[in-house]
Amino acid sequence: MTTATAPSTHPLVDKHAEVIAQATQALADRSYFSRFPESPSPRVYGEGSAEAGQAAYEALRDNAFGGLGDVRTDGDWVGEEVSPYGPALGITYPHLDVDAALAAATEAIPAWRDAGARTRAAVCVEIVEQINARSFEIAHSVMHTTGQPFVMAFQAAGPHAQDRALESIVAGLVEQERVPASVVWEKPGRDKEGNPAPLRMQKDYRIVPRGVALVIGCNTFPTWNGYPGLFASLVTGNPVIVKPHPRAVLPLAISVAVCREVLAAAGFSADLVQLAPEAEGEGLAKVLAERDEVRIIDYTGGPTFGGWLEEHGAARGQLVYTEKAGVNTIVVDSTDNLRGVLGNLAFSLTLYSGQMCTTPQNIYVPRDGIATDEGQLSFEDFGVKLAAAVGKLTGDDARAVELLGATVNDGVRANAAGLAELAEEAGGTVVLDSREVAHPAYPDAVVRAPGLVSMDASREDVYTQECFGPVTFLIGTSGTDQSLAQFRDTVREHGAMTAAVYSTSEDVLDAARDAAADAGVALSENLTGPVFVNQTAAFSDYHGTGGNPAANSAYVDAAFVANRFRVVTSRRHV
Amino acid sequence: MTTATAPSTHPLVDKHAEVIAQATQALADRSYFSRFPESPSPRVYGEGSAEAGQAAYEALRDNAFGGLGDVRTDGDWVGEEVSPYGPALGITYPHLDVDAALAAATEAIPAWRDAGARTRAAVCVEIVEQINARSFEIAHSVMHTTGQPFVMAFQAAGPHAQDRALESIVAGLVEQERVPASVVWEKPGRDKEGNPAPLRMQKDYRIVPRGVALVIGCNTFPTWNGYPGLFASLVTGNPVIVKPHPRAVLPLAISVAVCREVLAAAGFSADLVQLAPEAEGEGLAKVLAERDEVRIIDYTGGPTFGGWLEEHGAARGQLVYTEKAGVNTIVVDSTDNLRGVLGNLAFSLTLYSGQMCTTPQNIYVPRDGIATDEGQLSFEDFGVKLAAAVGKLTGDDARAVELLGATVNDGVRANAAGLAELAEEAGGTVVLDSREVAHPAYPDAVVRAPGLVSMDASREDVYTQECFGPVTFLIGTSGTDQSLAQFRDTVREHGAMTAAVYSTSEDVLDAARDAAADAGVALSENLTGPVFVNQTAAFSDYHGTGGNPAANSAYVDAAFVANRFRVVTSRRHV
Repeated sequence: MTTATAPSTHPLVDKHAEVIAQATQALADRSYFSRFPESPSPRVYGEGSAEAGQAAYEALRDNAFGGLGDVRTDGDWVGEEVSPYGPALGITYPHLDVDAALAAATEAIPAWRDAGARTRAAVCVEIVEQINARSFEIAHSVMHTTGQPFVMAFQAAGPHAQDRALESIVAGLVEQERVPASVVWEKPGRDKEGNPAPLRMQKDYRIVPRGVALVIGCNTFPTWNGYPGLFASLVTGNPVIVKPHPRAVLPLAISVAVCREVLAAAGFSADLVQLAPEAEGEGLAKVLAERDEVRIIDYTGGPTFGGWLEEHGAARGQLVYTEKAGVNTIVVDSTDNLRGVLGNLAFSLTLYSGQMCTTPQNIYVPRDGIATDEGQLSFEDFGVKLAAAVGKLTGDDARAVELLGATVNDGVRANAAGLAELAEEAGGTVVLDSREVAHPAYPDAVVRAPGLVSMDASREDVYTQECFGPVTFLIGTSGTDQSLAQFRDTVREHGAMTAAVYSTSEDVLDAARDAAADAGVALSENLTGPVFVNQTAAFSDYHGTGGNPAANSAYVDAAFVANRFRVVTSRRHV
Repeated sequence: MTTATAPSTHPLVDKHAEVIAQATQALADRSYFSRFPESPSPRVYGEGSAEAGQAAYEALRDNAFGGLGDVRTDGDWVGEEVSPYGPALGITYPHLDVDAALAAATEAIPAWRDAGARTRAAVCVEIVEQINARSFEIAHSVMHTTGQPFVMAFQAAGPHAQDRALESIVAGLVEQERVPASVVWEKPGRDKEGNPAPLRMQKDYRIVPRGVALVIGCNTFPTWNGYPGLFASLVTGNPVIVKPHPRAVLPLAISVAVCREVLAAAGFSADLVQLAPEAEGEGLAKVLAERDEVRIIDYTGGPTFGGWLEEHGAARGQLVYTEKAGVNTIVVDSTDNLRGVLGNLAFSLTLYSGQMCTTPQNIYVPRDGIATDEGQLSFEDFGVKLAAAVGKLTGDDARAVELLGATVNDGVRANAAGLAELAEEAGGTVVLDSREVAHPAYPDAVVRAPGLVSMDASREDVYTQECFGPVTFLIGTSGTDQSLAQFRDTVREHGAMTAAVYSTSEDVLDAARDAAADAGVALSENLTGPVFVNQTAAFSDYHGTGGNPAANSAYVDAAFVANRFRVVTSRRHV
């Protein structure tokens, strides 16, 4: 009988033992660890690798995507991706035959289950290593589906996403290996004569997967938000069907292609990972979610469909992990480094035009102003100075687009264009309009710099709605007490992925920590350097907490992996 | 700032450090461990303790239950418990003011949260120790609410339930302590001159609870099924409201009384654990489940309300842990110890008149019979011999009632009385009718011995329905292959808490293990001695797997505890 920790002779186990050991230690310590270098420099990735990656991406354009090999298709080809930078990608993908795909996934379970956790983890690490080798190709695919600027696309969708994948793999492995493969259980006892007669049983604990897992990708971070669920399910024995956002198929298509190649080369069914591309409007996610074979769903996207998945999934006994939406919040109380605060905040708002699920939306500032190293600063002047910092960072079009990227959809563009209307509705002021930036290389791209609207803390009706994109609210409060109370209450009710506080007062920082604990959101304190509230580091920072409405789970804690498999005991007397 | 693993000077931490260490080790190894002796002998529990416990129980009769102290009541008193052995208990309990109770629970959170995981665990262990001291009183209360025979009521509702509670406490503690309190995260880097300039941040990880937890008790095992959820939620920082089954209030009322006394004596709010008794038909569980303050629900009971909780809880973002119903299954293939098989099975069917969620219901036997150490045995003769074994075990009324207890409700009585009708419907035969047993001490008790009905494997329509109580189906199959296939398919679809196989063939045992893995149910093999398929041992056997429809969780694995708290990080440069 095979058990989770049965010794395995699969060659990949030895190959990846050391990186798994290092990553496991880092995850336990939550210390710094990164397997995949974030610099796209040729000194790191090799001379010519950037050019080769770009060429590989270009070769995929205007073509049928063949990298998935022999797939369970109904014969249709779908795909209508258009780059936020302008050009249509012209790529089509084989459309799944859902019945055949689910049957193939189910059929693949026993061999994958019985391979054991360590072999599965090693195969998963090999997949991520092979994905890493295609980071430049993936970066271009992400840039032209999400609108991310190139360097960000490389880092966030490449090495950072790969580190999150590795984190997920080792978290799943650790969790499975916490269960011993076997134990001899001996209960003391005596026979009728009073002599010791222990009751002895051998108990074997077998790790079994839940069933087919479904990953539903998002438009803005297809790999970064897609990998944790994909690898958490795969390493725990579940075959995975990846349903990408119809406008961001390619990054996940390449990733799934690598999964299938590595699985097949390692002696397993390629159908353990399948891609489910759809025609826009097809509603394939719902079709798949409603299948009884699907036992796990990972979802990143809007709250309406996310809520539907949670409710209907529970009724079907599915596990549903969601990341939806929220109102990320910053409380500004005081600082001894105003320049650092403004620079840090300006960058946070600018990066990818505020289209990160972690970009701050609500900045609470006392109406009476704040104490700074440059003297007392009024609420209005704080807005003016933050606007100036954003303006300085994004003033030059050619440099700005390398931070801003392009707007991903019409919703973002409408939000960016609607600041005056929004300010009027909120009884507030446009402190900085969202500037239209001309992209020197892509004239069709709609690029927008951050805008700022100030309003009063009483206008909860406006600022507790998520306004996705380059729009930030400066909210005037009666003081830091009100700022913290609003922070706590609005995040508890509406959710947030991130929060930050600026204060020179230990009392205020303590109160902010308590408010963050009550609200269930991670807190960054006094970030004035090159760490930004929007960014989390794999192995150390949790992404989300699962403790407020923005997300029901966190990358990557034990709860994210522990329920994706079950333990089946068999026991007998010995 | 207080963190999960902050050093604590609470005196209970030292007091219980050793038992926590022992239990933690046992849980990791899944080896034998029991903190609370299962023998009700005066040599173990002290001379006079049995009598004192009975007197304590009797003193509660025909009285208002005052043990809860100062509770958030609306002034009503409720309680209509009637012993399955006959007499009304005559006890009333203070009815909660739901608003006030939820407010008090919520108010109690910060101090309990900030006490840290180790203090919480120590206080929880102290509660269980104090509950253990009242095991005889609880045994009588369980006997007279569930109908369990006395010795079983003592063991299952006393020490065994207390061991499960301790298991739940240490599982929750371990899970919280896997998260470090703090780390200095150091990312290598260089400054503009190329000198080492690492980026350093301190990150503090704070354990925060979900919110108010609700435990919904069942009629048959109020403590054994109630404690795991109660203590898993409490140790992870959540206040708990315990809503007992209206016919089994007293065992949980005593338990909650102990919780409140110990919490208050330890310096915490007694309202961290509150009892929510209800008038029968009030529907208080639903009222409580629909409150936004309630974030966790543990439920044992029927599948209809359990399914409602799962679905509507998910829509509200609640965590819902359920144990519902299933069809526990035994596959009989062959044996070299027929006498042991029959004796073991007869006991399993007899104990508590089959009213355990773990009692076998479906026994698959090949129509062509089985090979045994007493020669080939036909399907019919296997039924005759099993009936004889049951008859021998339960033939003497006075001895039988000490195993059978009393029937708990009219549904069980109707099932026991309806075998002829059921056999006719199923085109089968009554192999053994459920005998009415006269209780020598309690003439009003309805006591029933196990009955057996044989039918063909084609009658899935009958035997895949749960028929709770002293009714077992002998199902004739075309052979062990069909037995295993039916086992796998019916458990996968309808759920099971337990399964067993009897075979002398290693191939059959292997196939049974595979079928159990596919079905997601624990397997007992060739039990012919004093271990029974209905029984699981804390720290070693999981109760349920969470992998089939009978239960969505298991006592006690990591997934049962890991999501009951969340981690909130705060990070800053150092």
